[in-house]
Amino acid sequence: MAEAKTLKDLFYGALRDTYFAEKKILTALPKMAKAAKNEDLTAAFEKHRGETEEHVSRLEQVFDIIEETARGKNCPAILGLLEEGQEIMKEYKGSPALDAGLVSAAQAVEHYEICRYGTLATWAKELGLEDGVELLEQTLEEEKATDEALTELAESVVNYEAEEAKAA
Amino acid sequence: MAEAKTLKDLFYGALRDTYFAEKKILTALPKMAKAAKNEDLTAAFEKHRGETEEHVSRLEQVFDIIEETARGKNCPAILGLLEEGQEIMKEYKGSPALDAGLVSAAQAVEHYEICRYGTLATWAKELGLEDGVELLEQTLEEEKATDEALTELAESVVNYEAEEAKAA
Repeated sequence: MAEAKTLKDLFYGALRDTYFAEKKILTALPKMAKAAKNEDLTAAFEKHRGETEEHVSRLEQVFDIIEETARGKNCPAILGLLEEGQEIMKEYKGSPALDAGLVSAAQAVEHYEICRYGTLATWAKELGLEDGVELLEQTLEEEKATDEALTELAESVVNYEAEEAKAA
Repeated sequence: MAEAKTLKDLFYGALRDTYFAEKKILTALPKMAKAAKNEDLTAAFEKHRGETEEHVSRLEQVFDIIEETARGKNCPAILGLLEEGQEIMKEYKGSPALDAGLVSAAQAVEHYEICRYGTLATWAKELGLEDGVELLEQTLEEEKATDEALTELAESVVNYEAEEAKAA
């Protein structure tokens, strides 16, 4: 009989999945920053890129805490989410709705991360990994703040574009 | 020159994407309900299946409002998210951590939907689709309630499994 899998296996799997996701996000953000027309949106993507580097480093610290090698595990969800962002960049290139589409794609990624870090923090608590909980919750708060900043930007970006479309 | 794409195109695209996602979720939920060991978790998945049928019908009403045919558009994000749930069901079959993994997979799907309905409601407002906003916000509230119910279940499921593992 195969060895019974435990919450620790689940935690390690989700950690590897999130590590893979953060590294993919790291390569996607500069492309999104470059594509955005609105300067505030470009700045938001660039700021989040810096934070994401820190998130990768915190995940490496959590791998250390559980004495496992830091390595990613193919995560189909993040690949699908980032693919949607690429489609938007291609389909809406040069169109007034591009930035609104970019914000929505970025928020889908943020929500995925918020969910993952929430789960990881809950499991780390259950496993008694106090230092891990602290690291994971720090990142969770930053992801939530990014999502809120994007919601605010979404409103101004959408309004601006609607006006531009009327003026055209 | 190609016709400039507008917020309305973006809205229609996201509506088709969400319609595709809801239909995929509709087929995934009975499998998750069957796989879960905890009765409350099975009941939560079954309840959400009923709600999801209603969500599909509301989306069809929104398609009617914008006078477009209700048809889905391949959405790589939901396919990736559901694939992760299938992996958990396969890898953790018969293990004490299965239910905790199922909850986490379901929450990733909920977060995706919360994000999508939030975006759709914002855009519907901007486009002056008052009846659409109401339908989309109804679903948004139900998705949030499901996510909260899953968070509560996550804690009891994880506690139960940790005790079971100790007793083994």
